[in-house]
Amino acid sequence: MRTLLVIGIGAGNPEHMTVQAIAALNRADVLFVPDKGVEKSDLSGLRHEICDRFVTNPASRRVGFDVPKRAAPSSSSYRSTVDDWHEDIAGIYEALIVSELAEDGCGAFLVWGDPMLYDSALRILERVRNRGKVDFAVKVVPGITAIQSLCASHKMALNRIGDPVLITTGRRLDAEGMPDNAGTVVVMLDGNCAFRNLKDKDVTIHWGAYLGTPDEIIVTGRLGEVEDRIVAIRAEARAARGWIMDTYLLRKPGEPEERDSGASAATTRSHI
Amino acid sequence: MRTLLVIGIGAGNPEHMTVQAIAALNRADVLFVPDKGVEKSDLSGLRHEICDRFVTNPASRRVGFDVPKRAAPSSSSYRSTVDDWHEDIAGIYEALIVSELAEDGCGAFLVWGDPMLYDSALRILERVRNRGKVDFAVKVVPGITAIQSLCASHKMALNRIGDPVLITTGRRLDAEGMPDNAGTVVVMLDGNCAFRNLKDKDVTIHWGAYLGTPDEIIVTGRLGEVEDRIVAIRAEARAARGWIMDTYLLRKPGEPEERDSGASAATTRSHI
Repeated sequence: MRTLLVIGIGAGNPEHMTVQAIAALNRADVLFVPDKGVEKSDLSGLRHEICDRFVTNPASRRVGFDVPKRAAPSSSSYRSTVDDWHEDIAGIYEALIVSELAEDGCGAFLVWGDPMLYDSALRILERVRNRGKVDFAVKVVPGITAIQSLCASHKMALNRIGDPVLITTGRRLDAEGMPDNAGTVVVMLDGNCAFRNLKDKDVTIHWGAYLGTPDEIIVTGRLGEVEDRIVAIRAEARAARGWIMDTYLLRKPGEPEERDSGASAATTRSHI
Repeated sequence: MRTLLVIGIGAGNPEHMTVQAIAALNRADVLFVPDKGVEKSDLSGLRHEICDRFVTNPASRRVGFDVPKRAAPSSSSYRSTVDDWHEDIAGIYEALIVSELAEDGCGAFLVWGDPMLYDSALRILERVRNRGKVDFAVKVVPGITAIQSLCASHKMALNRIGDPVLITTGRRLDAEGMPDNAGTVVVMLDGNCAFRNLKDKDVTIHWGAYLGTPDEIIVTGRLGEVEDRIVAIRAEARAARGWIMDTYLLRKPGEPEERDSGASAATTRSHI
């Protein structure tokens, strides 16, 4: 049976690569490398830089492929647009697996961040399997996410003590605002600066772009004070490079309320 | 000025170590290694195994220290108990920094998982700084968390498409149940199997213990069907080893509702 490795390669810093990810890269016969087009050539270059630096297996080949553009979700729902797009990509993956891998071969997909987080490689491979034309085993290798890179650069904990964290999208933040059940919100996939529409300007925003790379930009402050600056910096950086990858964290002021003081708190995980 | 490196060492598999973390380990003059007592000797051993395998700097020293036990939060609130405990640890850190590091020296704290996630090293160092006796620069190195290790072992995405994720604690899950604003909940620091008290037994649970280690155990299924099995496996494993580290993810059945279909979804992060 074929094996497919889905490898998290970190959030932009090649040194985010884990020992496990490097071993996985070198186990693969074929590295499938998407070509995202000129607009994101820096990103494509970074993927090749990671291969150049860490691949020592002389038998490994790189096979490029094109990722189709996703249709704008104007006439249909967001999910059905994503659905059609994933089906197109599943067809491409299927063809790559059948044509490039021997029946006992091993291929690798390199995923920015971690395959678990707002990435669809695992879901698309499940579609390929369900199409019934080719079978394979999957192995997942975790990688450092943009959230971790953001917190490391801001030298901060993701959570307040004993307090939940909501990871959400720009669309959902726009629709729902700050949640009642978490003091911290991480916003992913926000191309429209949804933070501008938040009513609560007293939250603190910790924003970062090109995290982990030499071009990293970070901004922290009370939302009401820094939101315009972030919008301007973001637009300028995007215009200069042709693309941007950014994420941010919103934190309510103060410490969390204790909703259940006195309850037992026997924990088994040490967390000094 | 002194420099303190706070290094995420991954969730239990030494191969979670990143290239950046290995470089940081070797930059430090002193590696501060907590001694958790006999009960968690496997964990302490794993920390030393990581140092043995990856430290190549002949000038580096390991300095052990004891972490005080946290008081049971019976007579006071959870947060004030944690507060007292952190102040005790801050005193220990302060003494270590002053006595073990030269004025331009570099020390490292090795943190399980990632320093950002339900870990207090960064907060405690901030306390040390605020005590005013010693100043230092901090650098944070991210590491693979138990959440990532859990998802990799279950070969699954953390989020449903376009849907939020809540990261919470066993205490909060117990108090609040499944949230309305997220289809996925990750539960950390749950020593009491809070999932047993959930009313909605149709959620799927993805549970894992000793994640990333040779002793890893994972269980998946409809909560109503597997909860008793998880409780039994967990009790047995804990009795056999004397300690357990586990985490789990709860997922509502089906796909998320589309609350805002038709809204613009221009995203700049590629997420095939």
